[in-house]
Amino acid sequence: MNAPDKFTSLLSLTREPFPASHKCVIPGSRPDLFVPVRDVQLTNGETVSLYDTSGPYTDPKVEIDVRRGLPDVRGAWIAERNDTESYEGRMHHALDDGAKNEDRDAQRLAELRAGASALQRTPRRAKSGANVTQMHYARRGIVTPEMEYVALRENGKREWMAEYLANEERAKRVAGNPMGASIPRIITPEFVRDEVARGRAIIPANINHPEVEPMAIGRNFKVKINANIGNSAVTSSIEEEVEKLVWAIRWGADNVMDLSTGKNIHTTRDWIVRNSPVPIGTVPIYQALEKVGGVAEDLTWEIYRDTLIEQAEQGVDYFTIHAGLRLPFIHLTADRMTGIVSRGGSIMAKWCIAHHKESFLYTHFEDICDIMKAYDVSFSLGDGLRPGSGADANDEAQFAELRTLGELTQIAWKHDVQTMIEGPGHVPMHMIQSNMDEQLKHCHEAPFYTLGPLTIDIAPGYDHIASAIGAAMIGWAGTAMLCYVTPKEHLGLPDRDDVKQGIIAYKIAAHAADVAKGHPGARSRDDALSKARFEFRWQDQFNLGLDPDTAREFHDETLPKDSSKVAHFCSMCGPKFCSMKITQEVREYAAKKGVAEAAVLAEGMEEKSKEFMAGGGEMYIPIRAVS
Amino acid sequence: MNAPDKFTSLLSLTREPFPASHKCVIPGSRPDLFVPVRDVQLTNGETVSLYDTSGPYTDPKVEIDVRRGLPDVRGAWIAERNDTESYEGRMHHALDDGAKNEDRDAQRLAELRAGASALQRTPRRAKSGANVTQMHYARRGIVTPEMEYVALRENGKREWMAEYLANEERAKRVAGNPMGASIPRIITPEFVRDEVARGRAIIPANINHPEVEPMAIGRNFKVKINANIGNSAVTSSIEEEVEKLVWAIRWGADNVMDLSTGKNIHTTRDWIVRNSPVPIGTVPIYQALEKVGGVAEDLTWEIYRDTLIEQAEQGVDYFTIHAGLRLPFIHLTADRMTGIVSRGGSIMAKWCIAHHKESFLYTHFEDICDIMKAYDVSFSLGDGLRPGSGADANDEAQFAELRTLGELTQIAWKHDVQTMIEGPGHVPMHMIQSNMDEQLKHCHEAPFYTLGPLTIDIAPGYDHIASAIGAAMIGWAGTAMLCYVTPKEHLGLPDRDDVKQGIIAYKIAAHAADVAKGHPGARSRDDALSKARFEFRWQDQFNLGLDPDTAREFHDETLPKDSSKVAHFCSMCGPKFCSMKITQEVREYAAKKGVAEAAVLAEGMEEKSKEFMAGGGEMYIPIRAVS
Repeated sequence: MNAPDKFTSLLSLTREPFPASHKCVIPGSRPDLFVPVRDVQLTNGETVSLYDTSGPYTDPKVEIDVRRGLPDVRGAWIAERNDTESYEGRMHHALDDGAKNEDRDAQRLAELRAGASALQRTPRRAKSGANVTQMHYARRGIVTPEMEYVALRENGKREWMAEYLANEERAKRVAGNPMGASIPRIITPEFVRDEVARGRAIIPANINHPEVEPMAIGRNFKVKINANIGNSAVTSSIEEEVEKLVWAIRWGADNVMDLSTGKNIHTTRDWIVRNSPVPIGTVPIYQALEKVGGVAEDLTWEIYRDTLIEQAEQGVDYFTIHAGLRLPFIHLTADRMTGIVSRGGSIMAKWCIAHHKESFLYTHFEDICDIMKAYDVSFSLGDGLRPGSGADANDEAQFAELRTLGELTQIAWKHDVQTMIEGPGHVPMHMIQSNMDEQLKHCHEAPFYTLGPLTIDIAPGYDHIASAIGAAMIGWAGTAMLCYVTPKEHLGLPDRDDVKQGIIAYKIAAHAADVAKGHPGARSRDDALSKARFEFRWQDQFNLGLDPDTAREFHDETLPKDSSKVAHFCSMCGPKFCSMKITQEVREYAAKKGVAEAAVLAEGMEEKSKEFMAGGGEMYIPIRAVS
Repeated sequence: MNAPDKFTSLLSLTREPFPASHKCVIPGSRPDLFVPVRDVQLTNGETVSLYDTSGPYTDPKVEIDVRRGLPDVRGAWIAERNDTESYEGRMHHALDDGAKNEDRDAQRLAELRAGASALQRTPRRAKSGANVTQMHYARRGIVTPEMEYVALRENGKREWMAEYLANEERAKRVAGNPMGASIPRIITPEFVRDEVARGRAIIPANINHPEVEPMAIGRNFKVKINANIGNSAVTSSIEEEVEKLVWAIRWGADNVMDLSTGKNIHTTRDWIVRNSPVPIGTVPIYQALEKVGGVAEDLTWEIYRDTLIEQAEQGVDYFTIHAGLRLPFIHLTADRMTGIVSRGGSIMAKWCIAHHKESFLYTHFEDICDIMKAYDVSFSLGDGLRPGSGADANDEAQFAELRTLGELTQIAWKHDVQTMIEGPGHVPMHMIQSNMDEQLKHCHEAPFYTLGPLTIDIAPGYDHIASAIGAAMIGWAGTAMLCYVTPKEHLGLPDRDDVKQGIIAYKIAAHAADVAKGHPGARSRDDALSKARFEFRWQDQFNLGLDPDTAREFHDETLPKDSSKVAHFCSMCGPKFCSMKITQEVREYAAKKGVAEAAVLAEGMEEKSKEFMAGGGEMYIPIRAVS
């Protein structure tokens, strides 16, 4: 095969498994249903099983050819429901890729050379009159394989729960505060169905994206994170995008949004969707705007509608649609510090003002629902009026739009279309909770999906941190998915390392939220790592971390010798000052002494200690040595 | 001058001023009292004045010779109080620097060569019977120059407050939630005095550290951050330490703790204190342990006491003293996941167990107070039993010690010794507030000084982020100072870049807390930067950020040309998709139209819009264009 030069980088996708890790599966109720997890082998013989977003890329047994796309996970499930049909689909226009009509031939030729056409699937859609959304099935009481998949995936193996619960004092002391969430100890397929039925969770899974490994977004599931990738008018190239996807899911992105806006966006999207095991979201107005040469006023419902169908046929799992930005709200931004900062929002605002008309996204909302339910594309109702600075947080523009998103949610649900709600943005810490409260109140527990929020405005270059603070807090409060922010936010396009930095910061935020909510099993990984830390199992400490490579590298900078990885001290304090070493000595010392004392200790320890000390006597010693 | 080779790196201390910034002063009531601030010149002619921790190092007009130390800021204030005397002081033993006695001559010679002896000041102490603490003066109603300095410094210029308050809707909407703090709109010297008198704030300022630029730590002042520096038994060198100090305060460290534990720690400390404009803290037990060859059991009260005096004479401003770790509490750690993780705590635990005796820090606490008040060294009462993992958070060991720290605070206050309380450590988000509640309850509002806390345990390599989340939350809740955590936490010694990363993460946390508390003027910098961002004043956006260098560098990676720094778009979205550009177009468009409409808009906007839209008519347009 004469692969063009431009594929070279794709042929070297990041494919190494994580250290000491291998892919395992949790089997479901049918032979074609099994959920991949990552098992980490510890040096003490234990195994820790982790939720895994990386897809087949970290499985050396799977051969991957990006020119063919990933193996099909759920094609059979879709087919056997017998409510969809394949059809010829919309013709791919040169304009879809930003090329002018006269460029069409050259464009097509380039595509063929690139093998891109081979990646196009024959699209499916609902049969006439059918509704193929997971919500529609759920509301009819059906547990789909997708729901069972999600249940198994959310549960994981929960292998430490028994040990965790065995220490009653600890289990009670660190039990989370769910802040209104109702997370069961075991997630059943029926629970998933019920959550989807009432709109409290979504499973973004377009019928034209059978490669997806189903996952759920909802306040009673693990908090998820989204990473944005995409080229732009100024930099980037198609080849980089697929590796960006692989890189993003490697580090833990549960969803990826393709925000490409330059040339070749149709083709880029084919590449991404066909190679993605995670749901892909887009903002269709970006491509629609390209089609009208970047002139917002020239947008029409017809062009937008055509773009929705184009992307639904490609398999995009959710669309950001700024249908809540209504004409009457635009003037509310006039006194703002930073106006309208959403790209989609500002495009629609410009259109509304130019035409003196209500947004066509709002007036055609039910028409959009009809498209969504024919492919099971989920709504991500966009917050076009989100604040772009702390000064604009929680203002009437923002909340007027949020209330409208709540109304639109009800309409979407009338059509059984899965829906989540986008949220800010820039919000100081003390104003975060009321964002969640308003969202819950007006949007009826539809999953909230927030960008950050950034808690301060003065950290350009570090906005992944400024926003991870807000993300953790709003995640604890009930937000279901956190859209990452990279260190390049406000400054430029993220590169490979920025994407990783953003994802790790958001994995921290999401996990902090899970722990705070008391998600069953969330603490297990923390406990396993803490135990490894205390027992000086350095390799296990690295391998259980969010980024084993960096942890190992940092350790090796000061103590590079292999022997130091089993040393009972580290470079921070040196051998004499290691508190953990001293603690162990204290326990051993205590174990040698005091069998008699241990009996005394067993009853009413502290009171007795006080009496004892008051008398100036000898000391009680620890009951237990290290096992 | 024949400077030895080892000074080479010192001679190239980081001394460049921040971009577009120059040092200004706020004059006080006497000619020798003026508070430095950093004024940032914006491209639109405005000036933004920032709190400045960097000392004279960022002032090109000041000549600095690290071999002589910084100019004296408050020597005259100390002298004119006429309650101290200079005296010969404790002899510097070879052992102080970790050298054996037989090494003494070689050691002394090396010191002389290094010019270190020139840095030793003749120590001062309180005259017999005198108490020279700021708390003692405050309780007698005296406003010291140090208190006035702090008041001016905390106030800053507050130049934007008028503009901020002018927008009533915004001022009301974003007003902070102080969570029990009582921050006045203007900080007066009398307010500072009253806060110090009741123990709610401290001004760490040893009379032997006249170089210090006074600052306050208290819940009604800006949230401060501390950076740790120090060598260790395994790596680092003295020369690096002074540049580490300069580097740390450049990026915003309000305090620095010298945690050196290797050789030459006495000499290192001389270098650091003499060159430090910020308060320096230490953990004296580290040096005491060195003096007994690293054998905790061999520690004695006499050796410890001698170490306190040694360091008090050098000018250390606060001591971490783990006097709350009592013998009867040690057994409470036996069931912990990670035992005792404080170095000082584990040393004392080992001593207590070995001798079957109560801690000499606890039994000699009043003797320690006598030393503290003779030099005005502040207590930082150590949390030797802080949790080392989320699993151990908020357990009885931790809280038993905290309650004891509250008792000790009362004793310290009886002696008018300034006191703050150290706190954890590793605490999941939902357990953070109760840490603050317990501290406030048992420690009578003495300033809380926490390490993080880290909200999860699975982020080795990124613990600055995992902990910045907890730090921001506990800072909002009332913690007065946040001890930074670097990316190397748990893994190795931080290098130059790690120190910077840790500090920036903590400046973010502290500022997020100030904004959330509603600290007057805290938002000003955010607003100035947001305004610059909206107006595409790129240089101002960089220069107002916490790290102008990184912001500029990130921007230039994708749009390096100078012209793009005034471009009305950026590399993220490109010219067609820039929402801020579109917003401005919307406003301009609106300005051209609608003088008549503006009148309609002025009354009952939203209701009228709805009616209007219901009628299918034309649209209202924004009232105001960009001014």
